[in-house]
Amino acid sequence: MTTVKRDTYTPETLLSVAVRVFNERGYDGTSMEHLSKAAGISKSSIYHHVSGKEELLRRAVSRALDGLFAILDEPGAGRGRAVERVEYVTRRTVEVLIAELPYVTLLLRVRGNTGTERWAMERRREFDHRVAELLRAAADEGDLRADVDIRLATRLLFGMINSLVEWYRPHPDATTEREQLAETVAHLAFDGLRTAR
Amino acid sequence: MTTVKRDTYTPETLLSVAVRVFNERGYDGTSMEHLSKAAGISKSSIYHHVSGKEELLRRAVSRALDGLFAILDEPGAGRGRAVERVEYVTRRTVEVLIAELPYVTLLLRVRGNTGTERWAMERRREFDHRVAELLRAAADEGDLRADVDIRLATRLLFGMINSLVEWYRPHPDATTEREQLAETVAHLAFDGLRTAR
Repeated sequence: MTTVKRDTYTPETLLSVAVRVFNERGYDGTSMEHLSKAAGISKSSIYHHVSGKEELLRRAVSRALDGLFAILDEPGAGRGRAVERVEYVTRRTVEVLIAELPYVTLLLRVRGNTGTERWAMERRREFDHRVAELLRAAADEGDLRADVDIRLATRLLFGMINSLVEWYRPHPDATTEREQLAETVAHLAFDGLRTAR
Repeated sequence: MTTVKRDTYTPETLLSVAVRVFNERGYDGTSMEHLSKAAGISKSSIYHHVSGKEELLRRAVSRALDGLFAILDEPGAGRGRAVERVEYVTRRTVEVLIAELPYVTLLLRVRGNTGTERWAMERRREFDHRVAELLRAAADEGDLRADVDIRLATRLLFGMINSLVEWYRPHPDATTEREQLAETVAHLAFDGLRTAR
């Protein structure tokens, strides 16, 4: 017996259902039928909230992107030496990634088949580019190793951070863990694992 | 018009075609028909070489796993302080990943629907575990920061290394680049990006 729920969704709560389904089945592999089943409301009820699955995708990746770009406007990202700013941004990026885990996961998985996906990829590259600029400024100020290629370092840094969406699963005491994780990533990237010699 | 090639494949050359198709379509999404088309030989010709696609998968991930596990038997992985050994293993892991890029890419993407996939994932975890043990030994010898959780550091280290399969594309002068990449990963992970203070 299929239970059809009364539609008590808001655009936000519907979004969280959609993002879960997108992450499970892939955006391409998700139909309005799948969304309707997962939400327990009819397709026409969904169309009451949004124009279709592409709008849900746009809202979802916007939430991730807004979270990431907001970091760059925080005081910690704007004052002090570039190396401190980029370390701050790294730490906060990990925190935002964990706070918005399903949304950032979706953002990192889009592959560019629709206009919205291509737009999301472009904005994501823009964020990476802003961080790369900070790293370059830190190198220019003499605070980063001269023998490291900045483009390569940026990619490895994001490789490390973004891998979190593949293996990180939140624990009950999420706040402590989130800070510890951000701390470890920043240590690893900027100070290295080795004790000072 | 379909051109059917004379079957001049060896198990090795057939394998490289299969791995390319597996990486493009996903292992689950690849049929013997797809392999036959990509290789330009009939399905029965393929069965002349292997028992089916699962054998091709097993050979492909074995190649990646053999390359990775061989590192642990190299002299550099066995002598000196643990921190030097784990740095050596990190460097060589990057080199093997790049040398065997399509095979390691496939290894990192298998998700465990068949026995062979589950076996591959288990072997991969075993390799990660061996590296984690080295990191733990280095911490016990006082050569790693005491404030970093080793399990977390291992995951972040592999997150960084494994991200290479997503963005690294070989350049003509691959040898120099491979060494530079291995060097950068080792610097980032063990010494950090920051200049010594």
